[in-house]
Amino acid sequence: PDLLTIGKRNFHSRLFAGTGKYPSLKVMQQSLRSSGCEMVTVAVRRVQAMTSGHAGLIEAIDWSKIWMLPNTAGCATAEEAIRVARLGRELAKLAGQEDNKFVKLEVIPDSRHLLPDPFGTLEAAEQLVKEGFEVLPYINADPLLAKRLEEVGCATVMPLGSPIGSGQGLRNAANISLIIENARVPVVVDAGIGVPSEAAQALEMGADAVLVNSAIALAGDPITMAEAMRWAIQAGRQAYRSGRLPERTAASPSSPTTGIITEAKTKQL
Amino acid sequence: PDLLTIGKRNFHSRLFAGTGKYPSLKVMQQSLRSSGCEMVTVAVRRVQAMTSGHAGLIEAIDWSKIWMLPNTAGCATAEEAIRVARLGRELAKLAGQEDNKFVKLEVIPDSRHLLPDPFGTLEAAEQLVKEGFEVLPYINADPLLAKRLEEVGCATVMPLGSPIGSGQGLRNAANISLIIENARVPVVVDAGIGVPSEAAQALEMGADAVLVNSAIALAGDPITMAEAMRWAIQAGRQAYRSGRLPERTAASPSSPTTGIITEAKTKQL
Amino acid sequence: PDLLTIGKRNFHSRLFAGTGKYPSLKVMQQSLRSSGCEMVTVAVRRVQAMTSGHAGLIEAIDWSKIWMLPNTAGCATAEEAIRVARLGRELAKLAGQEDNKFVKLEVIPDSRHLLPDPFGTLEAAEQLVKEGFEVLPYINADPLLAKRLEEVGCATVMPLGSPIGSGQGLRNAANISLIIENARVPVVVDAGIGVPSEAAQALEMGADAVLVNSAIALAGDPITMAEAMRWAIQAGRQAYRSGRLPERTAASPSSPTTGIITEAKTKQL
Amino acid sequence: PDLLTIGKRNFHSRLFAGTGKYPSLKVMQQSLRSSGCEMVTVAVRRVQAMTSGHAGLIEAIDWSKIWMLPNTAGCATAEEAIRVARLGRELAKLAGQEDNKFVKLEVIPDSRHLLPDPFGTLEAAEQLVKEGFEVLPYINADPLLAKRLEEVGCATVMPLGSPIGSGQGLRNAANISLIIENARVPVVVDAGIGVPSEAAQALEMGADAVLVNSAIALAGDPITMAEAMRWAIQAGRQAYRSGRLPERTAASPSSPTTGIITEAKTKQL
Repeated sequence: PDLLTIGKRNFHSRLFAGTGKYPSLKVMQQSLRSSGCEMVTVAVRRVQAMTSGHAGLIEAIDWSKIWMLPNTAGCATAEEAIRVARLGRELAKLAGQEDNKFVKLEVIPDSRHLLPDPFGTLEAAEQLVKEGFEVLPYINADPLLAKRLEEVGCATVMPLGSPIGSGQGLRNAANISLIIENARVPVVVDAGIGVPSEAAQALEMGADAVLVNSAIALAGDPITMAEAMRWAIQAGRQAYRSGRLPERTAASPSSPTTGIITEAKTKQL
Repeated sequence: PDLLTIGKRNFHSRLFAGTGKYPSLKVMQQSLRSSGCEMVTVAVRRVQAMTSGHAGLIEAIDWSKIWMLPNTAGCATAEEAIRVARLGRELAKLAGQEDNKFVKLEVIPDSRHLLPDPFGTLEAAEQLVKEGFEVLPYINADPLLAKRLEEVGCATVMPLGSPIGSGQGLRNAANISLIIENARVPVVVDAGIGVPSEAAQALEMGADAVLVNSAIALAGDPITMAEAMRWAIQAGRQAYRSGRLPERTAASPSSPTTGIITEAKTKQL
Repeated sequence: PDLLTIGKRNFHSRLFAGTGKYPSLKVMQQSLRSSGCEMVTVAVRRVQAMTSGHAGLIEAIDWSKIWMLPNTAGCATAEEAIRVARLGRELAKLAGQEDNKFVKLEVIPDSRHLLPDPFGTLEAAEQLVKEGFEVLPYINADPLLAKRLEEVGCATVMPLGSPIGSGQGLRNAANISLIIENARVPVVVDAGIGVPSEAAQALEMGADAVLVNSAIALAGDPITMAEAMRWAIQAGRQAYRSGRLPERTAASPSSPTTGIITEAKTKQL
Repeated sequence: PDLLTIGKRNFHSRLFAGTGKYPSLKVMQQSLRSSGCEMVTVAVRRVQAMTSGHAGLIEAIDWSKIWMLPNTAGCATAEEAIRVARLGRELAKLAGQEDNKFVKLEVIPDSRHLLPDPFGTLEAAEQLVKEGFEVLPYINADPLLAKRLEEVGCATVMPLGSPIGSGQGLRNAANISLIIENARVPVVVDAGIGVPSEAAQALEMGADAVLVNSAIALAGDPITMAEAMRWAIQAGRQAYRSGRLPERTAASPSSPTTGIITEAKTKQL
């Protein structure tokens, strides 16, 4: 089967889901189910602080089936992110995942555009790798930065398609393609996906997975949209494995034009 | 269930497939099966002429399950197209579909870019509607032309996304959106789709269906690509029915930033 | 010199300007001057009706320097457009242009999207050509329609880039390219240009001229924007004549990498 | 007048030109002249090594009129770039520009895609600022990196539009917009521009200047293309200062539709 391997763990689904912004925990539960996802990211700080919408969150998910991906959302510096990553490991243990050392690393000094800091991210990644974490860093789509994070031992790189929550799709496609071309770890497109076609496009380009939160949680009908994302990701992956038709400038008829039935023949029929 | 109705006929699948360009009839058969399609278009002239790749075509498809959509490919004038449409009806009868009056109308004077002639198309459509055909005209993405064809009684309109066989995707998206906005008959995007994400995008925009031939037949692995198209179209349709998240310029965090755990609290943990 | 020839008339400028939507006649006059344009289109119906903003319009322009291009804006049918075209010829005569038989043909049944009717346009064009007009038809970017209009004797074709006044740029670029490739009459991009870069792009693609109205009249500073359009059009035309650099997928250093000064050599310096 | 100020120096022209890839020094000289540029970048290493095409380069330019922008092309590390920057200062002195401390900082470990290393770039920038250089760093379009370089004292930031020499235009436009929005130093778009419309677009977005080399040097006619770039940049800047028309979804007629002359009135005329 076509598995996604991160660290030592295998996943069938190439959709990572989030837990924020849902209208209710119940809708979140049903959406996660219809999405078919096997990994869900959780904002450690918000869970700890019981931020609105996060109370009961941990209890609402069946962690025997879903792998937890604690994230460091809300951290502006490497130091903060390292501390929150450690808390995340505790959170995963509490959820019964003793061996879960995954962390989605976010170092975001700017609360307006929510863009990650490449320097703080690299610093935190180096430390967390030393501590045995499987680090999945959220980054701007910079091919050199991606390579550097791979070199220090990150388990994946997670370039953003467009700003978090913007739903603007793959605005950095050229750079994401370069990252994919050069990477030897999985590449997960992490933000900006608004509709299933954009998720499919990421997979068609060769991304190994996508993380989708707002596009599902804020859709008109999150449960239906979650399922739509599931099919789109499967479609994009199959298309990538199949290989697309060659792109052409000019048109090409669906059949050879030689041998077209002639006027005379048509009249006889 | 979410059915597509054309004329008096209902379809579950929103994918129309073609029969040209496949590496073999066997691959075509398997691709049609994995695509889940319920309607297949057939080039009447090429079947009659037994053009290479078309011998045995009719016999290769189970017409008790697949609805035939005869097309007038290879016709440069209204007159030719009308004649070939009538032959198409005979072909459908031979295949056991007594009540099949569908015709995909193509009037294409130019063999280089394969673009349809709006005048010949309208003329042929008017005549064929009079003769009781369900006419599905292949057109350039012109909103006024689409409206006119609807007014003369066409069963759908089929605007092209980009030139036939080019796999360039939706290059006329702005006009296709206007056509969808104004149409009271189903809108089927007919040419140019190269990858599943583009098929999904058409459905997300509100197109009722897509016709895909080259993108499947010329893919690296047509059978896998056919299935990818199936899922992508389902995804796009579900997304359209759900409604997408609002698009924003700025970023938006996945949770409220109020209530973020404070530095002090983190240290205590 | 690099002249634009339409009918028997030569122009140095490849910018056609409009007269609607300006904040005042004075700003219009200064904008036309700073644009360097030599042809200005005038809505015959609005002038005749003295619609708000059109009183004094004819008197405000120096018709010894500017060629009048009467247009049939506001006409929904071929019949109306033909009648208004004849009025336009009278208007040009009143302005002292005895031999001016130009008409910008607009047949627009839909007042919402202002998209032209291909059938009414062709019908009116045929009649007006017979009456000796130099017909410049405003059309959707349909290559077959453009060819047909050329064949009936139109002096140019004027495909729209995007809906009138929308300022969305060249949304139909793929089709406009095909029109340019096939045309033997000048191709003028007629609507949708919002900023100078879009005007430049049209010329780079090989369009012979552009018509710009809203983008100038509704700009923050119409007089400055008019001049910006002038330079952009000149830039685009020069680029077209020069030929662009070949587009590449990969990067290419500005100099050969052989012969780069070595580490050792640098240290000696 | 609308001056561009970098460090303590003012420029009328917003076009920075390069010196590589020209068919001959003579064509380079004429192109620089027709471009109207006032700043030209020179690859220090290649000049020192007399790489093919670089012999006689320094002598070919009138440095009493053109400001030299030495660059560190060919440097893979911060250390190398710092050393070459110092050589560049000597080169400028030799050319008679005693007070020229400008350096275009390029730290490019990868010779395939020529993408800059954010870490080496920051490290070198900090050192060079300490040494009194006016540092103009070439960077990937990362808003956080741009901000950081500004904070350490860089004179500008120079984000790339697309890979060097690719002529693919502004592929990172979303990120470049964020950089412009946040920057308090001039933003110069540095690579990827292929045609004048793309240069104009950068200025319309609010970039302060553009650097163009391949698009001129490798054009069919570099001298004409250089002038085209000149006009396009002027056009883009004027458009930015004027402010564009509001973008709309729907079409908008060039005149109010109220008051259109009625059928009856037309007939009377």
